[in-house]
Amino acid sequence: MKWDELGAQPCSVARTLAVFGDRWTLMILRDCFLGVRRFDAFQARLGLSRALLADRLKGLTDAGVLERRTYQTGPERFEYRLTPAGIDFYPVVLGLANWGNRHLGDGRGAPLIHRHKTCDHDFVPVTTCSHCGDVVEARDVSVRPGPGFADPRAPQPKSAPASPS
Amino acid sequence: MKWDELGAQPCSVARTLAVFGDRWTLMILRDCFLGVRRFDAFQARLGLSRALLADRLKGLTDAGVLERRTYQTGPERFEYRLTPAGIDFYPVVLGLANWGNRHLGDGRGAPLIHRHKTCDHDFVPVTTCSHCGDVVEARDVSVRPGPGFADPRAPQPKSAPASPS
Repeated sequence: MKWDELGAQPCSVARTLAVFGDRWTLMILRDCFLGVRRFDAFQARLGLSRALLADRLKGLTDAGVLERRTYQTGPERFEYRLTPAGIDFYPVVLGLANWGNRHLGDGRGAPLIHRHKTCDHDFVPVTTCSHCGDVVEARDVSVRPGPGFADPRAPQPKSAPASPS
Repeated sequence: MKWDELGAQPCSVARTLAVFGDRWTLMILRDCFLGVRRFDAFQARLGLSRALLADRLKGLTDAGVLERRTYQTGPERFEYRLTPAGIDFYPVVLGLANWGNRHLGDGRGAPLIHRHKTCDHDFVPVTTCSHCGDVVEARDVSVRPGPGFADPRAPQPKSAPASPS
């Protein structure tokens, strides 16, 4: 299987990784959540080439995760803003940061402290169940095929399927 | 900046991506949470080359995310099990799946349904605050430098720093 086939897999993790599964893409998104919006600012922070950055920003814009907005005319300048779909990715970014804080620290403590402005306390993210509100851990979860399930090993339908009769 | 420098960045997202930021690595982890443990099973499901799979499994084992255990002797065979640190990554995998379900569906519904066995209901993950228990959204969060913070643009200390006096 090649990477460009992954987006078609009937698995939401695979589909999501086809959009975000590049490390630069995820670092760009991290910066978006830290308030970075402009090409030169991304480039200065991340130190990747302009061509690579332009490619990744275009990918995120094409995917509907970022939106390119004009912030200056003459000459025209753009900034990149998270769309609602992009903002919805925040739990993943927060989860990546929290895992790193717990397991990859250098002994000095977290590089960034997250504060929940609503209750005005520092916090770590806790993943809970939408039904009962309790903490969800991997061992508490079972999965079953849903309506969008198809066996990825099964023969794929042709683009012009035979008549069913 | 090159990828092998990212692990040293004082950012927990960057550090985490230095371990997991490869799409195959994340697909392997998805499979681990679905109960896959053996080399041939990963290979049959993912369709990547044996060399690439061996490399990614070694990376996850070296990082302490998977543990290689003997399940048969003569000939010796190994399986790969999530360590406690690996299990701790579940919120990220669940978050990736949930985002895909919400934003990248093909109109048929979720490929996989998640059930919270504790309350016996289907659920989606909700990210909440460890202090107040309320739902956390990106706009509700502020960040500030923590004890592990260092400006990545600042000069790096030499391996043999000069005496402070």
